[in-house]
Amino acid sequence: MKTFRVSGTAAAAVLLGPTTALAAPSPDEMAFIFNTMSFLVNGALVCAMAIGFCMLEVGMVRTKSAGAICMKKVGLYSLAAVTYALLGYNLMYDGVDGGYIGSLSLFEVADPASETAEASYSVASDWFFQMVFVGTVASIVSGAVAERVKVSGFLWVAFVIVALIYPIQGAWSWGGGWLSELGFSDFAGSTIVHSVGGWCALSGVILLGARRGKYSADGTVNPMQASAVPLVALGTFVLWLGWLGFNGGSQLALASVEDASAMSRVYANTYLAGCGGALAATAVYYGFYRRLDVTLILNGALGGLVSITAEPLTPTFIQAILIGGVGGVIVAVGVPFLDRLKLDDVVGAIPVHLFCGIWGTIAVCITNPDASFGAQLTGIIAVGLFAFLVSMLAWYVVKLAMGIRLDDEDEMQGSDAVEIGLVSYPEFVPGRAT
Amino acid sequence: MKTFRVSGTAAAAVLLGPTTALAAPSPDEMAFIFNTMSFLVNGALVCAMAIGFCMLEVGMVRTKSAGAICMKKVGLYSLAAVTYALLGYNLMYDGVDGGYIGSLSLFEVADPASETAEASYSVASDWFFQMVFVGTVASIVSGAVAERVKVSGFLWVAFVIVALIYPIQGAWSWGGGWLSELGFSDFAGSTIVHSVGGWCALSGVILLGARRGKYSADGTVNPMQASAVPLVALGTFVLWLGWLGFNGGSQLALASVEDASAMSRVYANTYLAGCGGALAATAVYYGFYRRLDVTLILNGALGGLVSITAEPLTPTFIQAILIGGVGGVIVAVGVPFLDRLKLDDVVGAIPVHLFCGIWGTIAVCITNPDASFGAQLTGIIAVGLFAFLVSMLAWYVVKLAMGIRLDDEDEMQGSDAVEIGLVSYPEFVPGRAT
Amino acid sequence: MKTFRVSGTAAAAVLLGPTTALAAPSPDEMAFIFNTMSFLVNGALVCAMAIGFCMLEVGMVRTKSAGAICMKKVGLYSLAAVTYALLGYNLMYDGVDGGYIGSLSLFEVADPASETAEASYSVASDWFFQMVFVGTVASIVSGAVAERVKVSGFLWVAFVIVALIYPIQGAWSWGGGWLSELGFSDFAGSTIVHSVGGWCALSGVILLGARRGKYSADGTVNPMQASAVPLVALGTFVLWLGWLGFNGGSQLALASVEDASAMSRVYANTYLAGCGGALAATAVYYGFYRRLDVTLILNGALGGLVSITAEPLTPTFIQAILIGGVGGVIVAVGVPFLDRLKLDDVVGAIPVHLFCGIWGTIAVCITNPDASFGAQLTGIIAVGLFAFLVSMLAWYVVKLAMGIRLDDEDEMQGSDAVEIGLVSYPEFVPGRAT
Repeated sequence: MKTFRVSGTAAAAVLLGPTTALAAPSPDEMAFIFNTMSFLVNGALVCAMAIGFCMLEVGMVRTKSAGAICMKKVGLYSLAAVTYALLGYNLMYDGVDGGYIGSLSLFEVADPASETAEASYSVASDWFFQMVFVGTVASIVSGAVAERVKVSGFLWVAFVIVALIYPIQGAWSWGGGWLSELGFSDFAGSTIVHSVGGWCALSGVILLGARRGKYSADGTVNPMQASAVPLVALGTFVLWLGWLGFNGGSQLALASVEDASAMSRVYANTYLAGCGGALAATAVYYGFYRRLDVTLILNGALGGLVSITAEPLTPTFIQAILIGGVGGVIVAVGVPFLDRLKLDDVVGAIPVHLFCGIWGTIAVCITNPDASFGAQLTGIIAVGLFAFLVSMLAWYVVKLAMGIRLDDEDEMQGSDAVEIGLVSYPEFVPGRAT
Repeated sequence: MKTFRVSGTAAAAVLLGPTTALAAPSPDEMAFIFNTMSFLVNGALVCAMAIGFCMLEVGMVRTKSAGAICMKKVGLYSLAAVTYALLGYNLMYDGVDGGYIGSLSLFEVADPASETAEASYSVASDWFFQMVFVGTVASIVSGAVAERVKVSGFLWVAFVIVALIYPIQGAWSWGGGWLSELGFSDFAGSTIVHSVGGWCALSGVILLGARRGKYSADGTVNPMQASAVPLVALGTFVLWLGWLGFNGGSQLALASVEDASAMSRVYANTYLAGCGGALAATAVYYGFYRRLDVTLILNGALGGLVSITAEPLTPTFIQAILIGGVGGVIVAVGVPFLDRLKLDDVVGAIPVHLFCGIWGTIAVCITNPDASFGAQLTGIIAVGLFAFLVSMLAWYVVKLAMGIRLDDEDEMQGSDAVEIGLVSYPEFVPGRAT
Repeated sequence: MKTFRVSGTAAAAVLLGPTTALAAPSPDEMAFIFNTMSFLVNGALVCAMAIGFCMLEVGMVRTKSAGAICMKKVGLYSLAAVTYALLGYNLMYDGVDGGYIGSLSLFEVADPASETAEASYSVASDWFFQMVFVGTVASIVSGAVAERVKVSGFLWVAFVIVALIYPIQGAWSWGGGWLSELGFSDFAGSTIVHSVGGWCALSGVILLGARRGKYSADGTVNPMQASAVPLVALGTFVLWLGWLGFNGGSQLALASVEDASAMSRVYANTYLAGCGGALAATAVYYGFYRRLDVTLILNGALGGLVSITAEPLTPTFIQAILIGGVGGVIVAVGVPFLDRLKLDDVVGAIPVHLFCGIWGTIAVCITNPDASFGAQLTGIIAVGLFAFLVSMLAWYVVKLAMGIRLDDEDEMQGSDAVEIGLVSYPEFVPGRAT
């Protein structure tokens, strides 16, 4: 007889094998298993977005900050998950009931033996799926403020974002709070995730100021080139992949023909919106400059993805391509627009996540008859004001307490040398970077 | 009471939570859900192959073309998806009925509320899974013609490939056309995907000519080394992973013991064929040169994967290793063979995808009693002639219309400088590259 | 009528389409499908760990060894899979029955048509899931001995590890052997996978000696910096993602509410333990040196992940964070500890996988009432002695037969030049590397 992997734990103590049939799940159990599996698989795809954001940012900055970026990314994702376990999940979902905030209580994961088929899914799978959204918000901020922010200062602000800003405004809509009662509709978070990240980035960019040398006194913009374009492409492709889970899993269920069908359409529309954004951004840029731009096509794809995130279900394929396409145009126009305002956003996070997030939230009205323009606008403004002001306050307090910006000498040397004490590519002779 | 993520859209308007059971799916619904989920999960793995192809190619070329590669990749994948939505899917699958071509009509995605359990899966999930194959074809071409092709010219040819060449020949077999009636058997596309890519690459390589300096007048081959070997390894490992979904999802169903069992065997055989290819290529090379070669072991793995793609189900484990192993030998021999013909294939796409694709399609006869050598050969030749000639025409028309090759001066400077206007690794001092 | 992808193979010969319903699976079939799917999806995540280990190691070494690392990685994963197909699987699982070893017989994969719903899952899916663990063990060793080991010598030792050491000690516990009868509990392999890798690494490091110049005669340690920190971060994030499948899939079943719930909790706990490790390692280091360290936070995350691997199910979220956190501290302390012993472990594999593996195996007793300290200790010691001694013997025999270490001149030039005959980044001017 062949024994199949024995585990000493309670739940898997049986000897599994082809001759040992498990009890067949009841129909009631099926829904639980399908929905739970959807959260785990789609959640794993969202986890992959951490890889994407890290590679995107590390490729976009100059090499003297590359190690600090990696430090920030691992730090913020770790903070986000731990905070969401201890605090954020209940703050966002527990007893909001039409109000403004959940409960200040510790989330306790259920014992597997106590969960029953009467529920729709395992609470831990829901926690896992929701948790991987939190890091996204802080990750967006990280990219915008890179290269002159202090890593330690950033991590304190990130803590406020993941512990308070994200879960509180999340309670208003996804938690069943006042915005949800108003009919505000944001399928996977154009506003709730992406714009919130964008607003927190904007307040940081304003308070921090631009990198040394980015804007000359006479108004010219000095481009600071991505140090490793292939890593930017790598990051973008990984984000694109992860977005399938981000939007697809937000269907929240899989256990019916309608849910499975909806999730399929969400996958397809999400992918296509990214394509629309990439092509449109390229077309606009080519129309103006007769040239191709690789970081723009990459950011265009991301802009398309953000744009479809608020409503990836109801659009037809063509509508999805067009909604994403408008996002691509917004990115193509938004990047130079920010430069004109002398707002130095290293990776283009504000055009991609904030501008396209607003557009996507409005675009819900085009294809979803249940959405109202008034509710969407209310959500955009309320969430925006809250995120912008509280994050501004957080940046400001941290600035007073410990400083948020490297001094000029340190910035010139770079975060890696000053804060992390290493060189990220020690064997490559540095060229014309400054 | 805890509220669980509220979404304003129709399909997910219920408040999901552990105390709110959804209706249990009926047995009829189960098949629909399982099969749909298989397409989404396996399709996501195939999506990951875009990452793999991009990293492989960007690591294989010289740094002066790295940004252009990324541009090409995002562009072609975007074109492929949009085209397949608007045109390709119906051209390949709608009403082929033993013939040569589907219908020239717009594909319209179904409303989730209208799909029923009488179907086997959601059409959108099938579209998604099929769509991610299209980009693969153009991506193969991209690698072969890199470094001297004009990005814009390439994208026009890619458009022809994804809009016409792939879907039309696809209709012949997978669409239920004449080749399928003949009994041609190609499980996941050794011919239909990989060889087609290889033929379109071959026509391009012939028409473009080799890179400047690759072949000296006296016949010696000047190797142009991969600029970033670790990125080549990254790309190969990601492709290997994605191939599990590529072949596994091509079982097309999961909702029975036989289907689940078949998909498992396909996963295992696919993985093993890659191993066989890697080991055999290395063994052959070591036998001749008493040396190891890292890009060869990587391409050997890919050759093994292509070889098993036409029939990953019926081989035993040992047969899968051997079929992949022959693929690895073909790659080890095919790369210098192409160089002897002065065909400059930058990444080895033609040996890997075309030569091994042919081998894999023939190898079906070894393990699948339902396959006939005559039908396999007919398919290989018919598809090959069609893909080679039409792509040659496309390359030629684009050459006349706008040019497909950089002029000598531009090639020396590199696509990045000339077409994209950037340096992909601006901070690293360039060494001995040419 | 629309035809949906036709395949010529037996199992998928039907024309699938929305108007052609498949027979609904019976309740008995459901368990088979769910469990099989869990092995495939989670197994694919574990496959991704190959990407992670390769990028981690290639980023940690100096550029003169980067290509050799990639060669080693593809080689060892290929050897591992082929060996496990031909030999290892049956050696580990076939007829162990309380004893010390399975059977020396060829594993034959079942014909899909012969598998029935009376089994719990497809044997091929189990093989696939188990197989991707084997490469992990050898991959751990690879990182520790990098840069001075001969690639060919390493691959011979790797062969012994994957063909004999891993499956034999695996038979003792997961195969239902004497350790499992004793009550030894190791959910996903803190000891069985990670410590075994660590012990084989330790014996290699001892026998090989340190890299030239790493330890000066006067006792000072000369740090040899990671050549590409972003690739290290990439590798770590990918490993983190893959670990969800590594631990989650080790629940071995999904087809009940309890199993789905357990798998969810395992995913969440695994993720959180990584976070705990990252934060704790950083806190300890910052406490001592008032500085951040990026490779430490990355290794801290991995240490946390290894620590939770023996028991990711029973801990609460807070316990998981703490168990991972202790792992992070162990890494922070273990790395300099090894240096004091002049044991040169290039990537920190021994602190991460061996020290944290031991800790994780002991920590089972904290949260799992079924575990006994005695059984855990017995397992740690028995497996440790076996793996250490047999691997030491393997290293020694290979050393006598063909040598395991590059000579001084070759080591200075690097494996890439000497064994692989290439430069991994040929276009980048080398700087201060030695």
